[in-house]
Amino acid sequence: MTKNKLKNPTIIVIFGGTGDLAKRKLFPAFQNLYLDGRMSEKFQIIALGRAEKNNEDFRSYVAENLNLFSRRKGIDDPETEKFLSHITYHSLDIDKEESYIGLNEKINNFDLAFGERANRLFYLSITPSFISTISSNIKKIGLAANPKQDRIIIEKPFGYDKTSAIELNEMLSQTFKEEQIYRIDHYLGKETVQNILAFRFGNSMFEPLWSRNFIDFVQITVAEEVGVEERGGFYEGVGALKDMIQNHLLQILCMTAMEAPASLNADDIRNRKADVLKSIRRIKPDEVDHYIVRGQYDAGEIKGVPVPGYRQDKGIAPDSNTETYVAMKIYLDNWRWQGIPFYLRSGKRMEEKQSSIIIQFKPVPHSSFSYGKEGMTPNRLIINIQPSMDIKLQFMTKKPGLSMSLRPAEMVFDYFACSTMSPEAYETLIADALLGDPTLFMRWDQVEEAWDAIDTIQQVWKTTAPKNFPNYKAGSWGPEEADELLARQGHKWIPNTQNIKQEEVISNGTDIQ
Amino acid sequence: MTKNKLKNPTIIVIFGGTGDLAKRKLFPAFQNLYLDGRMSEKFQIIALGRAEKNNEDFRSYVAENLNLFSRRKGIDDPETEKFLSHITYHSLDIDKEESYIGLNEKINNFDLAFGERANRLFYLSITPSFISTISSNIKKIGLAANPKQDRIIIEKPFGYDKTSAIELNEMLSQTFKEEQIYRIDHYLGKETVQNILAFRFGNSMFEPLWSRNFIDFVQITVAEEVGVEERGGFYEGVGALKDMIQNHLLQILCMTAMEAPASLNADDIRNRKADVLKSIRRIKPDEVDHYIVRGQYDAGEIKGVPVPGYRQDKGIAPDSNTETYVAMKIYLDNWRWQGIPFYLRSGKRMEEKQSSIIIQFKPVPHSSFSYGKEGMTPNRLIINIQPSMDIKLQFMTKKPGLSMSLRPAEMVFDYFACSTMSPEAYETLIADALLGDPTLFMRWDQVEEAWDAIDTIQQVWKTTAPKNFPNYKAGSWGPEEADELLARQGHKWIPNTQNIKQEEVISNGTDIQ
Repeated sequence: MTKNKLKNPTIIVIFGGTGDLAKRKLFPAFQNLYLDGRMSEKFQIIALGRAEKNNEDFRSYVAENLNLFSRRKGIDDPETEKFLSHITYHSLDIDKEESYIGLNEKINNFDLAFGERANRLFYLSITPSFISTISSNIKKIGLAANPKQDRIIIEKPFGYDKTSAIELNEMLSQTFKEEQIYRIDHYLGKETVQNILAFRFGNSMFEPLWSRNFIDFVQITVAEEVGVEERGGFYEGVGALKDMIQNHLLQILCMTAMEAPASLNADDIRNRKADVLKSIRRIKPDEVDHYIVRGQYDAGEIKGVPVPGYRQDKGIAPDSNTETYVAMKIYLDNWRWQGIPFYLRSGKRMEEKQSSIIIQFKPVPHSSFSYGKEGMTPNRLIINIQPSMDIKLQFMTKKPGLSMSLRPAEMVFDYFACSTMSPEAYETLIADALLGDPTLFMRWDQVEEAWDAIDTIQQVWKTTAPKNFPNYKAGSWGPEEADELLARQGHKWIPNTQNIKQEEVISNGTDIQ
Repeated sequence: MTKNKLKNPTIIVIFGGTGDLAKRKLFPAFQNLYLDGRMSEKFQIIALGRAEKNNEDFRSYVAENLNLFSRRKGIDDPETEKFLSHITYHSLDIDKEESYIGLNEKINNFDLAFGERANRLFYLSITPSFISTISSNIKKIGLAANPKQDRIIIEKPFGYDKTSAIELNEMLSQTFKEEQIYRIDHYLGKETVQNILAFRFGNSMFEPLWSRNFIDFVQITVAEEVGVEERGGFYEGVGALKDMIQNHLLQILCMTAMEAPASLNADDIRNRKADVLKSIRRIKPDEVDHYIVRGQYDAGEIKGVPVPGYRQDKGIAPDSNTETYVAMKIYLDNWRWQGIPFYLRSGKRMEEKQSSIIIQFKPVPHSSFSYGKEGMTPNRLIINIQPSMDIKLQFMTKKPGLSMSLRPAEMVFDYFACSTMSPEAYETLIADALLGDPTLFMRWDQVEEAWDAIDTIQQVWKTTAPKNFPNYKAGSWGPEEADELLARQGHKWIPNTQNIKQEEVISNGTDIQ
């Protein structure tokens, strides 16, 4: 996990080079890496697409999109001009083997120009159904024949259940060795997610508290304000469990709950993360309703603007049972966490966009203090991942005044003084892949275990239709059942928007009790 | 430690009613309590002084000083006018028994007017040499004959060593029972000092860390910018050990190190504080130089303004060996703190006025992170008592950027959003004494143990002249030997002014490693 400038010549081949991800995320990431001096001078991006285009037209298209989506300078910057000169467009028909021969020639020509065989990074920014074809064609032509030099990046979803994921992986492994496969979860590239490890293991004072002895429960939220937007066709039949829980939320769970790794080497970290996934308590089919709540949004309002329900969204069946919200209680069967609930929730059309981890500590074992109407708040550590990027510690303090009564207070650490300095998640991840550092990518056993953890839920939901869809209003925090899930345990979802307002509390400061 | 409005009629008798403390602290405190509605309507302050004065003149004198020293409204406020009408001046010769007869008559007259015998609070705001005479005269005239109703407040110093303190206490106890004696240490009335208990025992997440298992050392600083000012005559022969360490610093040590009290009742808390004083490791005469450093300031500069050395100050002998600075290492011989040094230091003419407690946690047991030139900073909890009133937590966090390296960061809780709301220490303490709550006052065993803890040092210093006085420059942080005291342990004094500047550190954020 230490970073160096890329020294080796490198050829990046983007399948789906004219697609949405490429224009919004990939080209801006490569541009930034280039402008930051992290690319070798000997590098080439070959963008693949079905249409015939010349390089000049394609570079203008990239430049225009950099202007829209890059945090750095766009068209008129001479350094960006240089960057663009490293991009080549190549027309390819994914299904046709002969089409890869032309790609092979192009790659070989660049190798010749570089004076050595370059590293090759194949970025599969395409729908998953093409993975198999691409992989077998790469194999046939021998495009990725050197396991030390050649890598492939694959976007999620990696399969749609455990069985399909195993099939996909077996197919891939005919072309690529595990160490060549970089399964991306862009959440892991986020600064605030990476900081979880730094915060836990770069400090001596949190880890002693980080267990069932002192923690009451953990809450992980990834909430979106958006609905399915233009992705309706894709989202139908996928749903929140596969789209969010299986990857982003379980990965955040791993960072939060893992044991300390022996080192920061990729496999030391990934071993400890895999341990967490393995220790997730597997539930029986008849327990699904007890541990998991699904929801689908009805029409409602987001910040005062009326929005339609999921079933009225574009590309959605009017009787769709796809879930747009999941809340679940997870137990980790290991020494550290036995009996401590981890509450995960993710939903679309929530009141507010928010990704956060909240660690709620146990109440004080004994207290003689009197406290005001705010009540005795347990200690909380709130790690905001996005859009806020901060860490808050909530604690009790003496209410200023003559009486010895307490009030809640908080301290805040803002992760960014100026957020423009932050590399985008894709920048971090691509830089890692170029350097051959797989730490922030999902190893096969992680993917398999994550599917295993949710397979039973999927199976039960496939055969049991939800009774009351739609069951939450757009702009709310999800269905009532999600509150009941926690209430059974005497817990409540903690809105992290519930800031402690110092002034308000202090205004009662000198009141007479 | 719960506070109510004072219901009983009360007569406060201030010995030294024309003195400095009365005008700066006591009258403003009574005024504030009155304006906050905390005084019974039936109360009377009898200010005693040697000179003959009429009430009107004395009230004008008080009103003028309220204008100077009170945080509330002064002369022109009708409520303050009412408050002033509760003040009576009475001329008294401390040494003459017959002089107390007039005082007795006055008190009896107020009792008559109140329609019942009022509570009596005798506030001894005079030099300690008068305590004995006053006490015996109070006894002779029977002024404090009701132990349930009558109390006495005594300012520090309470004796000048263990033997003299025992004598003083024995003498006092001929007139007053222990529960009538309120030995004041105004540090204990400070909001930020009281908050130490709230912070430790109102939260579940700090106490598990609060021991030799996780803490490396504790540093307690009470630094003054001022020299001896007009107090030269008093300070000579007293020195920092008796003036500051024996009371303020040892009391803060108690709050920091004590076990959790069974309740917030006065004796439950004071029992646990006394335990700390008892567990202070007593040192042998030949160990004094190993554990304690004394200093005296030479001429220097405070914030750019030249100031003379101690020996050149008014009322100071040109060869004085009185110490104006003490640094000491204390071990507590108990289960919680065995082997953990508590570094205490207090001095005059320091670089900056500052009272603070710094808890430095142990380094991480194992780290693979790389870190910048700022180094790997251990976690620190910084409790600022004055003039800053805040709590800071220093920790390591990921440096934004592509590499996994760490940087120090901090979060801050400001105790006061607006400091004018804060009651002054004297207000808190007087309110407690009026209500008969001795929690924040020093019980006899605490005073005795505190003297016992420093008696050996005093005795050694009395017979061994310091070799190198003056040994630190005014405007510095004390003599070099104080640094060596910590260096022997591999520690350093932590300047709490060493804020972590986020911006500076972040500007290196995207550097390439």
